[in-house]
Amino acid sequence: MAQLNSKIHEVIVTTMADNGEAHSAPMGITEVNGHFVIQPFKPSSTYENLKNHRQCTINFTDDVRVFAGSLTGHRDWPTLPCDKIKGRYLEQALTHIELEIIDFVDGDPRTKFTGKIVNDVTHAPFRGFNRAQSAVIEAAVLTSRLSMLPVEKVQQEIGYLTIAIEKTAGDRELEAWSWLMDKIKAAGIEL
Amino acid sequence: MAQLNSKIHEVIVTTMADNGEAHSAPMGITEVNGHFVIQPFKPSSTYENLKNHRQCTINFTDDVRVFAGSLTGHRDWPTLPCDKIKGRYLEQALTHIELEIIDFVDGDPRTKFTGKIVNDVTHAPFRGFNRAQSAVIEAAVLTSRLSMLPVEKVQQEIGYLTIAIEKTAGDRELEAWSWLMDKIKAAGIEL
Repeated sequence: MAQLNSKIHEVIVTTMADNGEAHSAPMGITEVNGHFVIQPFKPSSTYENLKNHRQCTINFTDDVRVFAGSLTGHRDWPTLPCDKIKGRYLEQALTHIELEIIDFVDGDPRTKFTGKIVNDVTHAPFRGFNRAQSAVIEAAVLTSRLSMLPVEKVQQEIGYLTIAIEKTAGDRELEAWSWLMDKIKAAGIEL
Repeated sequence: MAQLNSKIHEVIVTTMADNGEAHSAPMGITEVNGHFVIQPFKPSSTYENLKNHRQCTINFTDDVRVFAGSLTGHRDWPTLPCDKIKGRYLEQALTHIELEIIDFVDGDPRTKFTGKIVNDVTHAPFRGFNRAQSAVIEAAVLTSRLSMLPVEKVQQEIGYLTIAIEKTAGDRELEAWSWLMDKIKAAGIEL
């Protein structure tokens, strides 16, 4: 049954492959009764890794380059070893939590892993909303769905989002935005 | 000289009136060399209060009801006393900082206060981006400018923002959104 009003947190999930390599992917997750629910699509590295190694990290970062980068080939973000699980977390995380998976429902195309927090570490404070960060997140969602959207809709939404970029972006946001715009243009859409 | 790429942080600034009452207002501020720059319009309570009492609090909160509430008459948020200045901070702040104003340029219509951090306290961790929170912030900006915008533009942007509300909002975001929609409808705009 669908849950009403469960807020979606846009985060970076870091899992471990069998060979010990960390894999980070942006995902929308929910918090239910103090646990976090992760629903990766099948097939995906996050799904494979979590099925094989039932621990992962949730990175709460405001560095939008990590989100834009995962769609545009900029994936080489530094990680550090976790304290309570076998895993790694992103150096850019303002906060990261370490999860033990306590429940797994292997659906199709989406699976459902429920994780219990075993460590919750804050590295840097939240410094408020930034409209350019939000615009990058929206443009990333758009970029991930380019093949499903009419060209005019993409152009119109990017035009709208550009206002917040011009008014409120810092260097990180401008860099992330430029990666996404390059990708949209490379798909043959004029901006 | 205008500064290039100075990221705008959307925050709640809490100042103290002469009678000891706390006044909280949403503002877009910047960080410059470790100091925070606040530029209230004249006239405004934030300007008057800061001119008279050169201390204030910056509240970094992800509770979008405080932003939407300031435009819609929901202003009665609980505050707690500061530690290092005469001032108060919002109970909802994930982090708050306490500032001493070290520079003041009394321009028109905007003035410029530069504040030095004397206390920086994190109360709760950042839990990632939420697209509905961003939509509320955008709708708040829109609502504050209703009289300057064509009706069709307001309707179109609200239509666009509604998608993120429907997909990703929790209870707080839905409440804040409903306040803003009521205000837009009260201005005679059909949604």
